[in-house]
Amino acid sequence: MPQAAHTPSAAMIVIGDEILSGRTRDSNMHHLAMALTGHGVPLAEVRVIGDDRAAIIAAVQVLSRVHDHVFTSGGIGPTHDDITAEAVAAAFDAPIGVRDDARAILAAHYAARGTELNTARLRMARIPDGATLIENPVSAAPGFSLHNVHVMAGVPTVFEAMVASVLPTITGGAPLLSQQLTVHRGEGDIAGPLSDLADRHTDLSFGSYPFIRGGAFGVNVVVRGTDGARLNAAIAELAAIFPPDIA
Amino acid sequence: MPQAAHTPSAAMIVIGDEILSGRTRDSNMHHLAMALTGHGVPLAEVRVIGDDRAAIIAAVQVLSRVHDHVFTSGGIGPTHDDITAEAVAAAFDAPIGVRDDARAILAAHYAARGTELNTARLRMARIPDGATLIENPVSAAPGFSLHNVHVMAGVPTVFEAMVASVLPTITGGAPLLSQQLTVHRGEGDIAGPLSDLADRHTDLSFGSYPFIRGGAFGVNVVVRGTDGARLNAAIAELAAIFPPDIA
Repeated sequence: MPQAAHTPSAAMIVIGDEILSGRTRDSNMHHLAMALTGHGVPLAEVRVIGDDRAAIIAAVQVLSRVHDHVFTSGGIGPTHDDITAEAVAAAFDAPIGVRDDARAILAAHYAARGTELNTARLRMARIPDGATLIENPVSAAPGFSLHNVHVMAGVPTVFEAMVASVLPTITGGAPLLSQQLTVHRGEGDIAGPLSDLADRHTDLSFGSYPFIRGGAFGVNVVVRGTDGARLNAAIAELAAIFPPDIA
Repeated sequence: MPQAAHTPSAAMIVIGDEILSGRTRDSNMHHLAMALTGHGVPLAEVRVIGDDRAAIIAAVQVLSRVHDHVFTSGGIGPTHDDITAEAVAAAFDAPIGVRDDARAILAAHYAARGTELNTARLRMARIPDGATLIENPVSAAPGFSLHNVHVMAGVPTVFEAMVASVLPTITGGAPLLSQQLTVHRGEGDIAGPLSDLADRHTDLSFGSYPFIRGGAFGVNVVVRGTDGARLNAAIAELAAIFPPDIA
């Protein structure tokens, strides 16, 4: 078997009191998880923290050391509780201030709309020295990448646009593929055979996700790996053990 | 002003490869966040990690030291990838094995359905020494509380039932209240006045959540605190600065 190349790994930091209080239901984690899986950069860990400078600095420092990429969501708007940019700069001891390239983007955007580029909005042009801007085609105010940390907005439409901007700049690995088989049995009935199968296919991962539908138990078995032929073989074995007609 | 009582804090650990791969969209975090906010035990941090023993142990050890309560979701079923119970026991150096009280619950449940209590299902009766069982009215297999860590299922219906079982056993603080005012302005227009308001009401927290609806910008301003009268005063001040008829 060929030696596997280094698989890059990623972490995410979701920033915002409104997520932790339950006021807002986060959707950015799920979006990023799917995008990274398709790009071959598995998401290894997510931390959800509040609008707290010390917590942001600590999470950025720990996760940027352990993972190839860290993605943040939230806290880069114009208001007093938008402290992510300052905190990420502090995590790397990078100076931060209003940068001409970011100011020019905002100035053009607001001029076209007849809106004043006031002090609050100008906060969104504060970018750490050495950072690369991340394009925001929705509302102009850019995100940025500093070292291996990609700082993006929390508003889902903007977050998703920024993910689309930044992902092509990141070297991906082999995309993680998955196949699924639905078995109409209780999870306790399939656990033994599934464990045996997992032992015989150590290059694949096997997950089982029970459900109750119309009063009947069932399990979705998901096999994951990077080699499509190996996935097919495992799913065929699984289907032989649990034929789909046993409902 | 009276001295504030200790406000208990909580953390959550969401466990499951399927969340990180994007296959499954987690809903337990949002459910727990709302339930804890209502109970006066603010959720301070969430970590989402994979089905990885070392990662579970590390997260449990760190978070159970820092917070009054830790809630876990996922990984307590009958299959080979359900390793949460063993890992939580290991985090506290607690012995774990099939416990009679948990076995009796499973035996009664499966006997009533004519289903075999096989080796795989018996895994769900593995409970650490010293743990208290958490009732599962949906599918019988119990969760457990060990020290300040509450171990619950990942399936949302079961998770939610377990939260309802365990929350009354936890001493809550004053529930966090919130009020919201929708302002039909750009976030950059309200940032200055909002920051002044926050400086004058240091016992409250102010969040601003921009939206785009039908092509128009607006902001939902949320004021949070435990004193309803103070919230009313702040919202009245805010409404005076940004009268609702300015759309």
